[in-house]
Amino acid sequence: MGNPFFKNNGPFKLRDILRDLNLTNNQINQDQKIIDIKDLQNSKSNEITFFHSKKYKTVANNTKASFCMTTENLKNELPKECIPIIVENVLVSTSLITAKFYPNSINDDFDNTVNDINKTEFNNNVKYGKNVLIGQNVSIGLNCLIGHNTIIEKNVIIGNNCSIGSNTIIRNSLIKNNVRILDNCVIGKHGFGFFPKQNKNLRYPHMGIVIIEDNCEIGCGSTIDRGSMSNTTIGKNTYLDNQIHIAHNVTIGENSIIAGQVGIAGSSIIGKNVKIGGQAGISGHLKIGDNVEIAGGSGVIKDIPDKSKVMGYPAKNIRQFLKENK
Amino acid sequence: MGNPFFKNNGPFKLRDILRDLNLTNNQINQDQKIIDIKDLQNSKSNEITFFHSKKYKTVANNTKASFCMTTENLKNELPKECIPIIVENVLVSTSLITAKFYPNSINDDFDNTVNDINKTEFNNNVKYGKNVLIGQNVSIGLNCLIGHNTIIEKNVIIGNNCSIGSNTIIRNSLIKNNVRILDNCVIGKHGFGFFPKQNKNLRYPHMGIVIIEDNCEIGCGSTIDRGSMSNTTIGKNTYLDNQIHIAHNVTIGENSIIAGQVGIAGSSIIGKNVKIGGQAGISGHLKIGDNVEIAGGSGVIKDIPDKSKVMGYPAKNIRQFLKENK
Amino acid sequence: MGNPFFKNNGPFKLRDILRDLNLTNNQINQDQKIIDIKDLQNSKSNEITFFHSKKYKTVANNTKASFCMTTENLKNELPKECIPIIVENVLVSTSLITAKFYPNSINDDFDNTVNDINKTEFNNNVKYGKNVLIGQNVSIGLNCLIGHNTIIEKNVIIGNNCSIGSNTIIRNSLIKNNVRILDNCVIGKHGFGFFPKQNKNLRYPHMGIVIIEDNCEIGCGSTIDRGSMSNTTIGKNTYLDNQIHIAHNVTIGENSIIAGQVGIAGSSIIGKNVKIGGQAGISGHLKIGDNVEIAGGSGVIKDIPDKSKVMGYPAKNIRQFLKENK
Repeated sequence: MGNPFFKNNGPFKLRDILRDLNLTNNQINQDQKIIDIKDLQNSKSNEITFFHSKKYKTVANNTKASFCMTTENLKNELPKECIPIIVENVLVSTSLITAKFYPNSINDDFDNTVNDINKTEFNNNVKYGKNVLIGQNVSIGLNCLIGHNTIIEKNVIIGNNCSIGSNTIIRNSLIKNNVRILDNCVIGKHGFGFFPKQNKNLRYPHMGIVIIEDNCEIGCGSTIDRGSMSNTTIGKNTYLDNQIHIAHNVTIGENSIIAGQVGIAGSSIIGKNVKIGGQAGISGHLKIGDNVEIAGGSGVIKDIPDKSKVMGYPAKNIRQFLKENK
Repeated sequence: MGNPFFKNNGPFKLRDILRDLNLTNNQINQDQKIIDIKDLQNSKSNEITFFHSKKYKTVANNTKASFCMTTENLKNELPKECIPIIVENVLVSTSLITAKFYPNSINDDFDNTVNDINKTEFNNNVKYGKNVLIGQNVSIGLNCLIGHNTIIEKNVIIGNNCSIGSNTIIRNSLIKNNVRILDNCVIGKHGFGFFPKQNKNLRYPHMGIVIIEDNCEIGCGSTIDRGSMSNTTIGKNTYLDNQIHIAHNVTIGENSIIAGQVGIAGSSIIGKNVKIGGQAGISGHLKIGDNVEIAGGSGVIKDIPDKSKVMGYPAKNIRQFLKENK
Repeated sequence: MGNPFFKNNGPFKLRDILRDLNLTNNQINQDQKIIDIKDLQNSKSNEITFFHSKKYKTVANNTKASFCMTTENLKNELPKECIPIIVENVLVSTSLITAKFYPNSINDDFDNTVNDINKTEFNNNVKYGKNVLIGQNVSIGLNCLIGHNTIIEKNVIIGNNCSIGSNTIIRNSLIKNNVRILDNCVIGKHGFGFFPKQNKNLRYPHMGIVIIEDNCEIGCGSTIDRGSMSNTTIGKNTYLDNQIHIAHNVTIGENSIIAGQVGIAGSSIIGKNVKIGGQAGISGHLKIGDNVEIAGGSGVIKDIPDKSKVMGYPAKNIRQFLKENK
C-alpha cells in the first residue's frame, strides 16, 4: 500500500537504476521493473535493498528482495534468488537510488500545499487559533485544539483530544490520541543524516515518520526528527520537557520521563519507564533498558541494562560515580 | 483579591471536596464553605492547605488554614483550629483539589481570547509588527515594542519601555520596565510537574506566574516556566543569553549573567551577581549563593555558598578541579 | 563605502565626541571631523579607534587612525600621527562612541520596515509561504524558497537556490548560494556582549554580520549571533544540526559537521573538516585546528591542534580519556 507520507516515483526499470549508478550489466534482463526500495528485512520480490556490513549477515541470508546493492566481499551472503548489484560505496548508492524513488524525502522545503484552516473542512470540528495552516490530506480527530501560527503539513494524522500549541510545525508525523505538543516545536523534520563530501555533502533520504503514541506530552522548543528508513517513535504516556532534541530513528518506550535540554542521538532505543535528567546526552545506536535512571548532565556512551541507575560522563553506576566524586 | 491569572472556581462546600477525594466524614459540618487552596504559610481561615513532610513541621504548627490534607502520622502537628483531612497521598490529593479550584492552571491550551492588536486599545500607544495577538485583559505600559507574530496571552502585564521580539509567546507573566525579551521565546508555560502514573500521568496545577524584574534581557529561543504554587522570578538587571531553560519556581537574583544553553531545574534559588557559563546545568531545589561563579559546562548538584567559584561535574572548587584535570 | 547593515550617523566633530566622554582638551582643534570608528587594524585617517591591552601593541604601533581612545600607560605605543584620547575605561568609552556612530547596532528591536512579500518585488521570482515578511533593501537570488511566517529583515542578502524554513528570522546576514536554513532559527541577532553594571548593564554595539557560505545547512531552532566589530562566519558546506548556538564573532571553517545542541562561545575559531559531537561546548576565544574531532558532550577549554581527537570535560586526547574512564 506504500508510504502515505512520501510518494514513490517508481517503478523503474533495472536499466535506469544501473545507469544512475554508472554501471552496466548485460547478463540480466534490464527491462525488469523494480517497484520499491526497502531495508533487507522488509523488502520483497521485485524490490531492491542494500547490504553494507557483515553485522547484517543473518538478515541478508534471508532477504526476499530481488536485487541488492552490495560489495564483492559480501555478495555471497545473499540468497541466490537475490541478484547482487556491486557498487563501490553501498550507502552512497542506496542514497542515490532511494532519492530516485522518493525525491521528496531528501529536503524539507516548506509545504506549499497548506491553506488557512478557515478554508478547510476543519473549520467546524477543531478549535483553532489565528493563522493556522493545514496541508493537503491532513487528518485531525475529535476535540482537538491547534494554537496560533501553527503549521500542520501535508499527510499528517492527528488523533482525538490532542492539544497543539502555538508557533509549532508538524510534518511527516502520526500523532495518536490525547497528545499535547507545546509551543515552538518542530516535529518530523528530516534527520541529520548525510554522506560528508568535500564542497557538497550528499543528503540521504528520510522516508520514516515520527510516531507519537497516546497521552504523550512534548515540551516547548523541542525537535523530533523523523527516521530515515525506519520511524522515530515516542511511546505511550512519555513526557518530554522543553528544548529536547530527539534524533532520527530513535525509539523511546512508554511511561518515560525526559527532562529539559536532553539530547538523544540517532537510532538509539530507550526502554520503558526510563527517567532521564536535564541536559543528559545519549550517543547514537545505543540500547537503554527498561526502568533505567540517567542522572541530569550525564553522557551515556554505551548500552545500559535494565533497572540501572547511572551518572557521569561517561555514565557509570551512580553510587560508584558519587563515591569517586565526593 | 485573588490571583488575576487563574480564576478561582470556588468556593466549594467541604462535602464536594470530600467526595472528590473519595472520603466520608460525618463528624464535621459538610456545608462549610472552602474558598481557596494555598500552601501552609499563606492559607487563612476558610481555606484548605496541605502538609506532606516533617520538613514543614514548624510552618504547619502555625498555619491559619481551616482544613489541611495530610496523613495520620503528621496530623498532630496541626493547630487544633485546623481540621485534618486524612488522605493516602497528600500531593496527589492536593493536585486534584487545586485543579478543582483552578482548572485553567493544569494545561496550556492556546489562548482563544486573543485578538489582532489592530483591533485592540493598543493600536495607538504601542509600536508593533505584523500579526501581533493580544489576549483579554492584557496591560502594556508606555513606549513598548512588540515584534511580528508575537502572542501576548490574557492577563499578562508589561511595564514601560519594554521590547519584545518576534515569534515570542508570553503567558501568565508580569514583565516590569525596560525588559527586553528577544525572538522565539516561550515565557510562562506550566512547569514540567506531574505525578507519574502508568498510562496517564497526572499533571499538577501551576498557579504561579513568571515575574521578570526591571532591566532584564532574555535571549532568543529561551523558555521560562511559571511556578506551581509560588512564582518563577528573574531579578533586576539579570541577563540571559540564547536557548536557556528556567524551570518552574526558580528564583534568580539581580545583576546575574547567564550564558547560552544553561538549564536551571525546578525550585532552585540563584543569588545576586551570579555568573553562569554556557551549557552549565543546575539541579533542582538547590541554593546558589551571591557572587558565585559557575564555569561553563558545569553540573551543579549541591548548594554553593556565597562567592564560590566552581567548575566540573559534579561542580567543585574551580582551582581544585583544574588541578585534578590538567 | 561603509557598512550596508548599520547606518553610520557620523561624521561627528571631535568636540562632540569629547563631550560625550566628559573630557575636555583645548590643545587640539576640536572642529576636526571624525568619520567612522573601527578597530586598530582597519581604521584610517580621520577615523577613531581604541587600544585597551598590551596584547595589541604591534597593531597599535601601526594603526592609521587619527584618534585613539586608550589609557595613559598605553598611549606611547601609538604612532605620533595618532592623537591619544585618554579615558578611564577604554571598552566602555568605545561602546559609547560606537553607539553614537551606529545607534542601530545596540539593540534588536523588531524590524518595522517589513512588508508582506506579496506587496514586494519578490512576489514573482521567489516561492514563498503564507505570512512571509520582507524588510527594506533585501536582496534574494534565483530559485529561492521561503517558508511560512518567516521574516527576512532589512538589508539581508540571500544568494541563489536557498531554502529558508518556516518561523525563521534572519537579520543582518549575508547568505550565499545553496544554503538551507531550517525552521524556527534566529540568524543575525546581536551577541551576548555587554559591560556588567549594577542595576543597568551597558550593551556594546554589534556592527558585524553573519556570513553563511555556499552549501551550508542550519538545523531547526538554531541561533547564530552576529559579530561585534568582526563577523560571525559559517564556512562552505558546513552542516549544523538542530538547537545549536553559535555566539558572536565565531568563525567555522568549511566542510565541518556540528551535531545537535552544540554551543560555541564568542570569538572562537573552528577549523576546516572539524566534527563536533552532540551537546559539546567550546569556550570563547579558542582556536580549534583543522580536521579535529570533538566527542559529543565534551567541554573544550583550551586550543586544540590540527587533527586531534578529543573527549571529556575538560576535553583531552580521546584515547587517554577513555583509558582513564573505563
